[in-house]
Amino acid sequence: MKKNYLFTPGPTQVPPEVLLAEAQPAIHHRTPQFSRIFKELSEDLKYLFQTEKGEVFTLSSSGTGGMEACVANMMSKGEKALVLSAGKFGERWAELCSVFGVETVIAKAEYGDAIDPADVESILNQHKDIKAVFATQSETSTGVLHNIEKIAKIVKGYGALLIVDSITGIGIHRFPFDEWGVDVAVTGSQKGCMLPPGLAFVCVSPNAWDAVEASDLPKYYWDFKKMRKSLKDDTTAFTPSVSLIVAMKKALDMIKEEGITNVWKRHERLASATREGVKALGLELFAGANSSNVVTSVKAPEGVEIGAVIKKLRDEHGVTFTGGQGSMKGQIFRIGHIGYIDEFDIITAIAAIEKGLSEAGHTIDFGKGITAVQRALANS
Amino acid sequence: MKKNYLFTPGPTQVPPEVLLAEAQPAIHHRTPQFSRIFKELSEDLKYLFQTEKGEVFTLSSSGTGGMEACVANMMSKGEKALVLSAGKFGERWAELCSVFGVETVIAKAEYGDAIDPADVESILNQHKDIKAVFATQSETSTGVLHNIEKIAKIVKGYGALLIVDSITGIGIHRFPFDEWGVDVAVTGSQKGCMLPPGLAFVCVSPNAWDAVEASDLPKYYWDFKKMRKSLKDDTTAFTPSVSLIVAMKKALDMIKEEGITNVWKRHERLASATREGVKALGLELFAGANSSNVVTSVKAPEGVEIGAVIKKLRDEHGVTFTGGQGSMKGQIFRIGHIGYIDEFDIITAIAAIEKGLSEAGHTIDFGKGITAVQRALANS
Repeated sequence: MKKNYLFTPGPTQVPPEVLLAEAQPAIHHRTPQFSRIFKELSEDLKYLFQTEKGEVFTLSSSGTGGMEACVANMMSKGEKALVLSAGKFGERWAELCSVFGVETVIAKAEYGDAIDPADVESILNQHKDIKAVFATQSETSTGVLHNIEKIAKIVKGYGALLIVDSITGIGIHRFPFDEWGVDVAVTGSQKGCMLPPGLAFVCVSPNAWDAVEASDLPKYYWDFKKMRKSLKDDTTAFTPSVSLIVAMKKALDMIKEEGITNVWKRHERLASATREGVKALGLELFAGANSSNVVTSVKAPEGVEIGAVIKKLRDEHGVTFTGGQGSMKGQIFRIGHIGYIDEFDIITAIAAIEKGLSEAGHTIDFGKGITAVQRALANS
Repeated sequence: MKKNYLFTPGPTQVPPEVLLAEAQPAIHHRTPQFSRIFKELSEDLKYLFQTEKGEVFTLSSSGTGGMEACVANMMSKGEKALVLSAGKFGERWAELCSVFGVETVIAKAEYGDAIDPADVESILNQHKDIKAVFATQSETSTGVLHNIEKIAKIVKGYGALLIVDSITGIGIHRFPFDEWGVDVAVTGSQKGCMLPPGLAFVCVSPNAWDAVEASDLPKYYWDFKKMRKSLKDDTTAFTPSVSLIVAMKKALDMIKEEGITNVWKRHERLASATREGVKALGLELFAGANSSNVVTSVKAPEGVEIGAVIKKLRDEHGVTFTGGQGSMKGQIFRIGHIGYIDEFDIITAIAAIEKGLSEAGHTIDFGKGITAVQRALANS
């Protein structure tokens, strides 16, 4: 008997209630039965994004599909965008812009660091023709959180549009779409939403529609105008992932019951306890002061082949963490703590790290990490 | 207590075994655990498409996403394509080409008719610069089947590429990808594959890659080159719909157990019995001799408001059929019989039609339709 524990930044653990909702018999998507669910879902999604003015579209795709939709709808060929790039997902914005012939200026931070809002200001000041800024709230590849509130104020000051990848932000970190004045934001189902992957959600503000109307980039499946028209009829333009949508309604019921503010607080409390546990083991955080509450990225201790530790924990002990991506491979490991996660999960995660590092020959004072987690939780 | 019967051309009924496979605890997609499943799935998909030379990509999207991927990867801006258009899904090929700036010549058939292969020949003869032909095997909006084998021979004779929407073809009608020499074919999960919607599968022949390499249309999420690279590593380029993929493996196990030839024969037998039942009730088939085994489209009897009949059957009796789309609305109704369908389902479908039409005041000799179904099944 081996239980499986998923401490990854998505796909994440899915509540059994949500899994069973997904397993309900199929319904047809062009029926009042589906439209009733979809209408409620679309309202609940506005709560998730903390918006009243925005419209939230449900895309049957991964989060990357949602990002592609943002570029294809908000820009025109040859227009200029500022991309904030501090990791793999910021780089994805730049790649998408490049594919569609959008000119980019890149604000770059080293892996593990956050983009300095002052850099955003200085670039916008230099390039007055920047139409939109593409940002990442939580850079999952490094574990860094960006200050979208501050960035939004600067971007608005220059009259540019702000488009935010909040794929691992929404439902984890505070993200009041209307209050911050974000123009478009995208999230995915397999993160804070506690669902399997397969859906993306894009929130579009009224302010974004001039750009959508003007956009000359080719799109069909990703077309916001088609999505908006269908949303008015409580349906989707193309056959949606019905089973995931039914499951998502259940997941949002659970989020509403907990309350979005409590959801944010829970993630903050658990992430903070995780960091204490890691530090108590003498390990170093990779993202330092910019650590998000999404994923705790940790520098691999010297002399430990971290890839082998991750592999053994996953294949022999059923506990899945992730390593670093790209050039961070072998340098860091990442503990995901998003969605359907409670305090005993954090105890388990840190206990597994103690076990894994110990098995790899690293000196571990058993219980030191999990005791620190317990103390942090008791005091918060 | 109300059971739900889905006689729609997708989403279709999903076997409980497949629903439960979908409800299994989440696994992470960058693990050997996922790759093992995905590798087997990708092999099974080759069996489904009856190909040894082609590669089958799994897209997390609806079938339309798969169609967009075909256009975006196979064509370049300003190139010429021939689109075979005999209904809503043929029209979708034309719309997609238009969005991407691909010039189109349209071979058109009236709704309810099939494209004459001779028209394809004559157009290809007139326009020697046509690079690719976009066809629809089963035009679900009208219930018409196209003779792809014949069309393929003609297209090959002119050296053009053949790209087939077989979204409601694969797993229902015979479709030997290699034998017919199809270059690219696309199908969806919620049709013959007995899954909920959310996955598309695209089979790409070795012959197609020159066009893919040459294509200058913008794509990222839909990029065949990215898909091919990831497939070699038994994974996907972006986070896939893991739960649907796990369920699809189960569905393909069931298809392999029945045997693809038997699956085709079952659909033929059930569709033929459905047509007998419909005719015995004095109703007229809309697609006539070109009727597919996917969906039986039936002209609404005079004096019957067919939309109200469909609505009552669905909302009060739990039996879902679909009406006509676009200009066919109110003119026809459609009985889907694809995927997880057996002979007693056909009895139920025809019994429901007898009930629905009778309740609407249409004179029905109860049992006449279902008896004809029984006889047809007994004799086949």
